[in-house]
Amino acid sequence: MPEPVARAVVPGHVTGLFAVHQTDDPVRTGSRGAGFTMTDGVTVTVRPNDERKVLVDGEPTTVGSVQRVLEDLGVTARVEIETDLPIGTGFGLSGGMGLGTAFGANAVFDLGQTTTDLIRVAHVADVEAGTGLGDVVAQARGGLVLRLEAGAPPHGRLDGIETTARVEYLTRGELSTPTVLNERPAEITRAGNQALETLLADPTRDRFLEAAQEFTADVGLATESVRTILETVEANGGQAAMAMLGETVFAFDHDLSDAGYDPQVAAIDPCGASLE
Amino acid sequence: MPEPVARAVVPGHVTGLFAVHQTDDPVRTGSRGAGFTMTDGVTVTVRPNDERKVLVDGEPTTVGSVQRVLEDLGVTARVEIETDLPIGTGFGLSGGMGLGTAFGANAVFDLGQTTTDLIRVAHVADVEAGTGLGDVVAQARGGLVLRLEAGAPPHGRLDGIETTARVEYLTRGELSTPTVLNERPAEITRAGNQALETLLADPTRDRFLEAAQEFTADVGLATESVRTILETVEANGGQAAMAMLGETVFAFDHDLSDAGYDPQVAAIDPCGASLE
Repeated sequence: MPEPVARAVVPGHVTGLFAVHQTDDPVRTGSRGAGFTMTDGVTVTVRPNDERKVLVDGEPTTVGSVQRVLEDLGVTARVEIETDLPIGTGFGLSGGMGLGTAFGANAVFDLGQTTTDLIRVAHVADVEAGTGLGDVVAQARGGLVLRLEAGAPPHGRLDGIETTARVEYLTRGELSTPTVLNERPAEITRAGNQALETLLADPTRDRFLEAAQEFTADVGLATESVRTILETVEANGGQAAMAMLGETVFAFDHDLSDAGYDPQVAAIDPCGASLE
Repeated sequence: MPEPVARAVVPGHVTGLFAVHQTDDPVRTGSRGAGFTMTDGVTVTVRPNDERKVLVDGEPTTVGSVQRVLEDLGVTARVEIETDLPIGTGFGLSGGMGLGTAFGANAVFDLGQTTTDLIRVAHVADVEAGTGLGDVVAQARGGLVLRLEAGAPPHGRLDGIETTARVEYLTRGELSTPTVLNERPAEITRAGNQALETLLADPTRDRFLEAAQEFTADVGLATESVRTILETVEANGGQAAMAMLGETVFAFDHDLSDAGYDPQVAAIDPCGASLE
């Protein structure tokens, strides 16, 4: 007997640097790069239902990644999503909602898919919806994640940096992932690959933040309000970087609050997505 | 400046079925199989020290896997290990202690190793100490782990089954891993590969427990006291299996307590090892 309800928790994911890898196959498409998962994220509750219905914080909503996951798995469900994070601001929520839906649907409908199967379904949904290129694989793993090769398993290849951190973040607004990616993919990819190589030569938390800063400066994706925050933190002797892709700034420890801001506070989540 | 102390938590790991894969290279040596990590495990605290010193629950002890990890990483440290689990009874503690030492030493000495590097060091230490063949890679990942290909990254290959469970377990005594493995490796490996294939055809939590039961019956590793418990649980309409390798029986939900036993209670840990 399938359980009548299943709930998955998926951490938010902040990418600090990335390189786009576009192919004709959504399983192989994705990004190389580095980012971390956060203790703030999404909770996804899946129930069998007569029609497909998706609610985000109680509001009926269309979420491309979730819709595609339900279609791919061939199930009709009511999906209730709760999150404290703002959508479209660089926390990988689209990917997280899809991944949570995949984990929940597999449990509630007893689909007999392995973790890798479900990651693949959610990654493809995120890529095809145009909402993310590397969040899903990182969210499934958790921690400070190095995306060495793009794509879902078995093509993608991950590593990690074992670390802990208090995370501070500030969000000023949305950025459209497809719009930004279409603007200058070659430039982003050159800068992202370079930043990843310098990080791999010295894989530490501090080097990650520096590499993310350099990447932000190189690709010029920072908006005016993001640039102001980054400069203020730096002038105060701290370090901050921009979340890819959103008008969001993050720092470790107290570097945003020490510079006079009133940030949200979380921590690096070492765990990754799981059923609850 | 390196931090003066680092602490890692590593879940216990219970293998339900396995097949031995021996090679000349400890990185490639290991086991295929399936098991789960538990919320009960070990805490490993690492501090720089003038001499190598290892304490388990306050007692100076020699732990082969820990010693080898310190040597491999070239560090001199005091390692304090705490655990509520009994050693040598099938919870993968040797592997867990080595992995926690690797994570802790990397952090406290700022070694700049990636997660994969550290898993490899701890896996090789466990294999060379003769104390485990697949615990480390599973403990690093967490959850109900399928070991598809033996060995440490990049050779080993894992998948998982997303599930939750209350775990009940009872320990009656120790079994020596090297002794058991040397007795009949070919027979174990044939049975383990067969059990893994039936599990992969239907990768669910219930099938895992059945496959572990079948494996236990096939290889005849159960001692008299383990066999009595397994038969009592089965007569009571429940399901239990033996932890490889220890005189330990485990079950999900309430199947041991429903059969009149007074088991230890934990849960499947979805998270895997991490710094604290």
